[in-house]
Amino acid sequence: MPQLRLALAQVNARVGDLEHNADLVVDQCKQAAEQGAHLIVFPEMVLTGYPLEDLAFRSSIIKASKAAAADLAKRLADEGCGDLVAVVGFLDDAEDVKEAVGIPKNAPQNAVAVMHGGEIVAKQAKHHLWNYGVGDEIRTFVPGDTINIVQVRGIDVALAICEDLWRDGPSAAAKAADAALLVVPNGSPYEADKDDVRLDLCVRRARKGECALAYVNLVGGQDELVFDGDSIVVGADGTLLGRTEQFEPELLVVDLDLPAATPAMPDEDERFGGLKIKRTIVTDEPAESYEPRPVEIRERMDRNREIYTAIVVGLRDYVEKNGFRSVLFGASGGIDSTLVGAIAVDALGPDRVFGVSNPSSWSTEHSKTDAAELAERTGFSLDTVPIAPIFDAYQEALHLEDVAEENLQARIRAVIWMGLSNKDGHLVLACGNKSELATGYSTIYGDAVGGYAPIKDVPKTLVWELSRWRNAWAEEHGETPPIPENAISKPPSAELRPGQVDSDSLPPYDLLDAILDAYVERDLGSADVIAEGFDPEVVQQVITLVDRAEYKRRQYPPGPKVSRRNFGRDRRVPITNLWREHL
Amino acid sequence: MPQLRLALAQVNARVGDLEHNADLVVDQCKQAAEQGAHLIVFPEMVLTGYPLEDLAFRSSIIKASKAAAADLAKRLADEGCGDLVAVVGFLDDAEDVKEAVGIPKNAPQNAVAVMHGGEIVAKQAKHHLWNYGVGDEIRTFVPGDTINIVQVRGIDVALAICEDLWRDGPSAAAKAADAALLVVPNGSPYEADKDDVRLDLCVRRARKGECALAYVNLVGGQDELVFDGDSIVVGADGTLLGRTEQFEPELLVVDLDLPAATPAMPDEDERFGGLKIKRTIVTDEPAESYEPRPVEIRERMDRNREIYTAIVVGLRDYVEKNGFRSVLFGASGGIDSTLVGAIAVDALGPDRVFGVSNPSSWSTEHSKTDAAELAERTGFSLDTVPIAPIFDAYQEALHLEDVAEENLQARIRAVIWMGLSNKDGHLVLACGNKSELATGYSTIYGDAVGGYAPIKDVPKTLVWELSRWRNAWAEEHGETPPIPENAISKPPSAELRPGQVDSDSLPPYDLLDAILDAYVERDLGSADVIAEGFDPEVVQQVITLVDRAEYKRRQYPPGPKVSRRNFGRDRRVPITNLWREHL
Repeated sequence: MPQLRLALAQVNARVGDLEHNADLVVDQCKQAAEQGAHLIVFPEMVLTGYPLEDLAFRSSIIKASKAAAADLAKRLADEGCGDLVAVVGFLDDAEDVKEAVGIPKNAPQNAVAVMHGGEIVAKQAKHHLWNYGVGDEIRTFVPGDTINIVQVRGIDVALAICEDLWRDGPSAAAKAADAALLVVPNGSPYEADKDDVRLDLCVRRARKGECALAYVNLVGGQDELVFDGDSIVVGADGTLLGRTEQFEPELLVVDLDLPAATPAMPDEDERFGGLKIKRTIVTDEPAESYEPRPVEIRERMDRNREIYTAIVVGLRDYVEKNGFRSVLFGASGGIDSTLVGAIAVDALGPDRVFGVSNPSSWSTEHSKTDAAELAERTGFSLDTVPIAPIFDAYQEALHLEDVAEENLQARIRAVIWMGLSNKDGHLVLACGNKSELATGYSTIYGDAVGGYAPIKDVPKTLVWELSRWRNAWAEEHGETPPIPENAISKPPSAELRPGQVDSDSLPPYDLLDAILDAYVERDLGSADVIAEGFDPEVVQQVITLVDRAEYKRRQYPPGPKVSRRNFGRDRRVPITNLWREHL
Repeated sequence: MPQLRLALAQVNARVGDLEHNADLVVDQCKQAAEQGAHLIVFPEMVLTGYPLEDLAFRSSIIKASKAAAADLAKRLADEGCGDLVAVVGFLDDAEDVKEAVGIPKNAPQNAVAVMHGGEIVAKQAKHHLWNYGVGDEIRTFVPGDTINIVQVRGIDVALAICEDLWRDGPSAAAKAADAALLVVPNGSPYEADKDDVRLDLCVRRARKGECALAYVNLVGGQDELVFDGDSIVVGADGTLLGRTEQFEPELLVVDLDLPAATPAMPDEDERFGGLKIKRTIVTDEPAESYEPRPVEIRERMDRNREIYTAIVVGLRDYVEKNGFRSVLFGASGGIDSTLVGAIAVDALGPDRVFGVSNPSSWSTEHSKTDAAELAERTGFSLDTVPIAPIFDAYQEALHLEDVAEENLQARIRAVIWMGLSNKDGHLVLACGNKSELATGYSTIYGDAVGGYAPIKDVPKTLVWELSRWRNAWAEEHGETPPIPENAISKPPSAELRPGQVDSDSLPPYDLLDAILDAYVERDLGSADVIAEGFDPEVVQQVITLVDRAEYKRRQYPPGPKVSRRNFGRDRRVPITNLWREHL
C-alpha cells in the first residue's frame, strides 16, 4: 500500500489577524516539509481565525481573506513548500449566489483551500453550518454542497469541515468515492465533562466511511471560547494512531499506509449523502517507500487539571490578544478572588498581576491577612485602598440603608478598580463564581465589574475543589501551594455587613450547585427538578433567585450596545419575560 | 360571491405571560363576535408572546403553551365565541421529530392553531424561520412543511406565518389550492426609514397568489424591540382595503367579497412552493348576505413622529412589563438627557419620572438652569446631589488625572443613581445617543449605566431634530414645548473638564453621523466610505473611534453572563478581533 506522511497543525490563530495567521501557516508548513510530510492539515478558518461571527458580512474582510489565501499559496511555493499539499481554512464567498431574503450579506462561506505548487488546486465550503450551543453559523455563512476527493501521492483524500463530521454526509460520500483518508479541519471549543466524544465520533465515522480519519482542532483562547486542540488520527478500523496534547500548539506527524486510489467510479452528477463529488489529482505518483516514525499518542488530562488549564489558557489569550500588559483584581481574601489570583499568576506571571484590597469598616482581620498571604505565596503586588472615607462622603448625601448600603460598598470598590485600570492600563478581572452569579448574589456595577471573569462558569463547590487541586499539584511538584489554607476552610462571606455569611441568604453550596445543574445546565422545569428528589421549597427558592437574577442582569446591561439597525437590538433572551414558572 | 367579515386583532402580547395573553385573545374574540365577524386573526405567537428565544427550549413552557391553546379553544366556545373561527399563534412542538444533532432541544415550533367550536381544528408551523437581523429562529424552532387551506363560510383561507410571506412558497401554494384569502400572523418589529415595504410586499404576494391577503402584526414594546402594528388588508388585485393605526392596539374589521371555495384540485401528496396542502372544512355554508361596513384606512405617521412614538412606546412597555413604578435619569441640562426627560414624561407622566442633577466643581451655570427649566416645563421631580465631596474623597486616595479623572466623575454619578434606584426602585435610564456610543465618547460604568437607554439608536443630529419636532408639535397642539431652547442651541459638552466641548474630540456631528451611517448601518469598508466623497483622514478617525469603542464595550461587559454550558459563551461578536482595517 502507498505511504502517506500526514501532518496535523494544531495552532493558535487570532480572529481577524490575517498576517499573523498566514505567518503561522508558513512556519508550520516549513517544519512539516523539513520532516518530509506529504500533506498538512490546518484547523477550520485558520487564516481568518474562528469564529468570525458578524465580521464575515463585511465585503472588505472577504476580499482580504481571498487575496491572503492566493498569496499564501504562492508564498508557500516561494519558501520551498510547494511540494507539500496544504489544507488551509479561510473565508470565501459563494460567487453564484444572488442577494435574497435569508441569504447572508455578501454570501460568505466557511471554506478550505487545498494549496499545492503555488496554486489553490481545490476549494470546499462547509456543508452543515453549526447553529446550536455557541455556534451561530446559519446567520453568517452560505453552505456548500460539494465534497472534494483530492489525490495526494496516489492516495484519495476526502475533505469535511467540523460540523460536517457530526452528520452522515461526508463519510457516506467518502465511502462511495472510495477515499482512503478523510481529513477534517475543526474549530471545536472545550467543554467540561464531555467524555471522549471526539474520539468516539472519529472512530464511528472512520468505520462508516471505511477510511482513515484525521481530526485537526484549534488551540487557545478566543474571547470567551477556549479551543483545546486534542487533534486525533484513527485508522479505517477505528484504531487510534495519533493524538496531540490538550491546550498546547503542536505539529503532529503521523505515517499512514493507505489503499491506492482506484479509478473514479461515481458519476459526477450523482450525489452521496447529499453531496456532489469533485475529484482533483494533485500528485498521482506514490511516495518512495520509507521507514515510518513511531506514533505519538498523548494522554488526556484528568478533570480538575483540564478545567484549571482551560481557565488559565482562556485568561492568558484574552489578555494577550487584547494587548493588555497586566490585570488587576479585588483581593478580598475570600476563596473566589484567591483562586482568581492564583489563576492570573499561572497565566501571566506575578509581575503582570496586581491585587487591590479595599477593606471597609467591617472587613474582618482574616480577609486582609488571607489576601496578603496569597500575594506573598504567589508574588503579585498587593495595594490597599480603604473605602471608609469615600463611603462616608456618599452617605453624607444619600443615607442609604440595607441592600442599597451593601451595594454602595461593592460599587465604590469597582470605581476604584476602574480608576486604577484607566490610570495604568490593567484589565480588571471580575471574581464572581457561577453559583453566586446565577443566584444574583452579586452587585451589578459592583463586584460584577470587569472585562474578563475567569471563574464565571465555575460553581462554588468546584471553586473549592480546584483550589485544593492546585495546592496538591504544587505539593506534588515541590512548589509552594499558592492558596492559603484559611481561604479554603473559612465560611464564605460577602462582608457587606457585620457578621454576614453566605448561608444567611443561600442554601448550602453542595445543594445549591446540584439544583443549579438541573435547572440551568440541563434546562429542567421545576417539576422535573423536584422529581430528582430535591426539597420543593429549596427548589422554589433557588429557581426564584435564578430567574430574578437573570431578569436583573438583563435589565442592567453594561451600557447600550450600538445596533446596526435602527431601534433593533442584537440577539438576546427576552428581558420582560413573564413566564410564570420563572418569576 | 360569498361575503366574509374578517377581524384583525392588533394586540400587545407579553412574552411568557400566557394567562394575560389568553385573556387578551378572549376579549378581542368577544368584541369581534359582537361585531358579527366570521374569522379573526391574531399576530404571531400571541399566546406566548414573541420573540421567545431560548425560552422555547424549555419543555415546561411547551407543555404550558399547548395546554393553554387547548383551554383557550374551549373557553372561547364557553364564552359564546364558538362560531367565530380564530387563528391564534402559539408555541407547539414537532411530535414526530427525534432528538438529533442540529435539531432544537424539545423540537419547539412557531405555530398557529385554528380554533372553532371549542376545538383546535387545524395547526400549522412556520415554514421559513427568520434568522437574520434581529431574528434568530433556526436556533429555536423546527420548521413546518404544510400549508393549511381552511374553509370558512364557504371560502378557502390559506395560512402563512410572518417570514413565510417573504418567500415564494405560500402564495404559490395558495394559488395552486385556489384559496381566496391568505391570512398572515406577524411579529414584525419597527424599523425606521423602511419606506412602505410591508404594503408593497402584501400587494405583490396577493397578486401572485391571486387571493386577498390579511397581514396582522403585534404592537407594543418587548425588551429592545418595538412592534408597530400597521396591519393591512389588500384585495387580490392589490387594492388596499384596510389598515390599522401604528403603535396602538386596534381591532380592525373588514368586509370582503371573495370567490366561493372550489373542490380541492391538487393531489394531497403533491407539493406547491415546497409545501404540502392540507384542507379542513370548518364551515361550508356561506354567510347570509349583509351590508358591508365602510373601510378604515389609517394614515401613516411622518418620520419624526413615527420615531418619537416608537421610542415612547418602547420605554413605556419596558417599564410596565418589567413592573417598575418609576424611572430616574441624570438631568445634566444637555440635549440628550433633556430629550430623554421629555420622552419619559410622555411615556409615563411626570409623577413617575425623577431627575437628578449632579453638578461638579466645573459644571456650568446653564447646565443647572436648563435642567431646572426642563423639570418645570414637564413637571417631573428634580433632585440635586453635588459630587465634589465624593470626588475629593476618591482623589485623596487615588490621585487620578486626565481621562481617568474625567471618568471618575461620570462613575460617581452612576453610583449615586444606582443607590437611589436600589433605595426607591426606580429604573435608571441611560441618556447616551448613538453617535457618542458608537465613537466611545462615553464612560463605561459611568454615563453608560442604566437599565434602558431610550435614545441609544438615535444619532446626535436626530436628537436635535426630534427635540425641535417635539416642541413644534406642542406648539401646534397648544401645549408648552417641553424642551428649553437653550438646551437645543448651546454647543454640546460632556463638562468633565473646564471649557470642554464635544468638537475638541469629534468631527462636526453632521459629518460624523453621515460617516457612521455608511460604516455602521451600511457595513461599508473604509475604501467604500471614502469613495462616497468623505475626507479620508476624517473617515480614518471615525472608523478608529468606532472600532476602539466596540472593542472596549466588549471588553467591559456588565457582569458576566451565566452560560448554560461550561466555559462556553453566548453568541457575541469576537472581542479579540484583530482585523486590521478596524483597529
